[in-house]
Amino acid sequence: MTDTEAKAALQEISVDGVRVAAVEAGVRYADCLDLVAIELAPGTEAAAIFTRNAFCAAPVTVAREHLQQCQSKPSLLLINTGNANAGTGQPGLEAARACCDAAAKAFGVHPGAVLPFSTGVIGEDLPTDKIVAALDELAGKLSATHWEEASVGILTTDTVPKLAARSFEHAGTSYQLTGMAKGAGMLRPNMATMLAFLVTDAPIAAPVLDSLLRDAAECSFHRISVDGDTSTNDAVVLAATGTAPGVQVENADDELALALATALESLCVELAQGLVRDGEGASKFVEVHVSGGKTSEECLDVAFTVAHSPLVKTALFAADPNWGRVLAAIGRAGIEDLAIEGVRLAINDELIAEHGARAESYSEEKVAAAMAQRDLVLSISLDRGDAEERVWTTDFSYDYVRINAEYRS
Amino acid sequence: MTDTEAKAALQEISVDGVRVAAVEAGVRYADCLDLVAIELAPGTEAAAIFTRNAFCAAPVTVAREHLQQCQSKPSLLLINTGNANAGTGQPGLEAARACCDAAAKAFGVHPGAVLPFSTGVIGEDLPTDKIVAALDELAGKLSATHWEEASVGILTTDTVPKLAARSFEHAGTSYQLTGMAKGAGMLRPNMATMLAFLVTDAPIAAPVLDSLLRDAAECSFHRISVDGDTSTNDAVVLAATGTAPGVQVENADDELALALATALESLCVELAQGLVRDGEGASKFVEVHVSGGKTSEECLDVAFTVAHSPLVKTALFAADPNWGRVLAAIGRAGIEDLAIEGVRLAINDELIAEHGARAESYSEEKVAAAMAQRDLVLSISLDRGDAEERVWTTDFSYDYVRINAEYRS
Repeated sequence: MTDTEAKAALQEISVDGVRVAAVEAGVRYADCLDLVAIELAPGTEAAAIFTRNAFCAAPVTVAREHLQQCQSKPSLLLINTGNANAGTGQPGLEAARACCDAAAKAFGVHPGAVLPFSTGVIGEDLPTDKIVAALDELAGKLSATHWEEASVGILTTDTVPKLAARSFEHAGTSYQLTGMAKGAGMLRPNMATMLAFLVTDAPIAAPVLDSLLRDAAECSFHRISVDGDTSTNDAVVLAATGTAPGVQVENADDELALALATALESLCVELAQGLVRDGEGASKFVEVHVSGGKTSEECLDVAFTVAHSPLVKTALFAADPNWGRVLAAIGRAGIEDLAIEGVRLAINDELIAEHGARAESYSEEKVAAAMAQRDLVLSISLDRGDAEERVWTTDFSYDYVRINAEYRS
Repeated sequence: MTDTEAKAALQEISVDGVRVAAVEAGVRYADCLDLVAIELAPGTEAAAIFTRNAFCAAPVTVAREHLQQCQSKPSLLLINTGNANAGTGQPGLEAARACCDAAAKAFGVHPGAVLPFSTGVIGEDLPTDKIVAALDELAGKLSATHWEEASVGILTTDTVPKLAARSFEHAGTSYQLTGMAKGAGMLRPNMATMLAFLVTDAPIAAPVLDSLLRDAAECSFHRISVDGDTSTNDAVVLAATGTAPGVQVENADDELALALATALESLCVELAQGLVRDGEGASKFVEVHVSGGKTSEECLDVAFTVAHSPLVKTALFAADPNWGRVLAAIGRAGIEDLAIEGVRLAINDELIAEHGARAESYSEEKVAAAMAQRDLVLSISLDRGDAEERVWTTDFSYDYVRINAEYRS
């Protein structure tokens, strides 16, 4: 890449009204970017989705409070890795607030307009002093082009950063949407967190952002196999600086909102799939596609029962066409009146089972060859309606056990 | 053990009116007991619980039909290992019926009074001819004392047989209850089956047996961590020959029924715990005890969310006091209004967390020492009511992945 091309690439990532920075604060370990700031221009509107886990982390509680306090107009997102500040009780809440207060001074913003995010070990006290000591350096590094450092700075055990961007047009104006994410749920369970930060320069009011974000998350972050439900620190934020031309959109049916919705869904799906591909010990990327359901809900029930099954996941790891396990998972997904004669199962277009049994055309050789590929599509047809859904997951490997058994040791 | 003691032990296992046998039919592999018969005296009443999996195996469908046909008075239970006859469609049903027909001839009973049970690989055709060819030898081996062979003959990848007995008294008469079981769900998932056969000589009508069996299963087989729900072949049978003295009990409140209920619960808990202890790759036996809940249901929700969590299970394997994972599992168990300040967590009486954070008295050294033991009790107190529940589970080891990844290879 030439310098000109590199500058062009950074330009495509940058969002007007947003500056980012990352520094080594020593929270995680030495020589590691672990403190990130996303500065948002005055007037930026934002929406967020937080974990529903009852044991939510202190920064989640504080971020929720501050988003209300600043009337959905945050000035700064402050993210640390290395420590989740979860399971830390009242002292944890005080630590999160202390970081916001100090960041408000360093960045010249209101404390109630700082949203804190943490990811890392659960149950250890947040080293507030290390974070506070690094804030001036962090503020000094703010730049519209430091997205790559920022996307690295929010990682924990992820092996690659997840940074992506889209541009979209409306009424002759080009708008920018940029996002970054780090690992989630089952994928990065010990770190206990999926974080995603999405920013656009389009002028969109917070209630519209909230609606768009929930819709986009529903078909992206909520469709990747996590370990049951959201973890203690999960958060997804969508912010709109409104620095690009246009009248502020107050209605989700507005054409600019619809243009953003399309770009947002595409971006969120890319980031969510990136999280799965970088899953702990993952050797496969698996799409579970359930069609022919009566409702989306029952398609999702079947898809997630299959995607969560340790038996299916270990068979995928072994590239073993052990289709009985998939049928057994479908059979216990809770569809009371499922007619098993109508169920069809295929892997990468190789038909495996139909009429409640192995397909007559089944070829162990062909199916084994299909399963040897890194990317798999498990297609399940229920033959009882027109609904269909897709979820994404990984296999279950020795490395999964190793990573999760050894992480704290 | 002397011959006299051995005879006495067999006497304690034998149940009047019941003869059992096991032979090598060559269904599973050579030199392996894989076909078992339990012959029940005329007049025996029985009840059964079958899997609720929509993809239930052919023998489950046929056993359900036959139990109705014989009006809950079966004459023979026929069990094969090595092949589950599941995912086999219409030919599978015909194979199961053919085995019952042939067994009826060999044992001199009515075909509709034969209940078939299968366990083993899913999706392969049942080798009916091998089973039929072995039936005469099986009938010839029937004996009141062949329980140990029978308990071995129903095993698949289990490493030890699970055979247990109780005696109970009523109105000066001593009654016998004997049971055997093989691995279940998560524990023996690939074999896809938990089977348990329980017989008594007490005179109890089928509807009462049904009620007692459901109650006993609820606090035993339904309290071990299986992979979501019942698998394709699960079945538990309770039969009463009525050959011991007494008037047939038609009411679950009858004192003899209550005496049986107590013995049955104790026996089923022993067998269920035996299944967990012999779980695939298990290095720990873990009781998850949830107390202080508003309802039993919420206690079970928390207990099973913790017991099913791959993160908790890998931490238990590593003997790592990674209590944040347990809190995170409690937090996502679905209790909407859970006050995390009230939650207490202890392992083998070592307090770990309270007030939403690590306990002040927490000692990593003591907790690590507690976790190094094979038997663990994870005590979770919710501080919101008087309900409590216990479930039993295992850790999640390299061997779990190995066994499940390699089984079919």
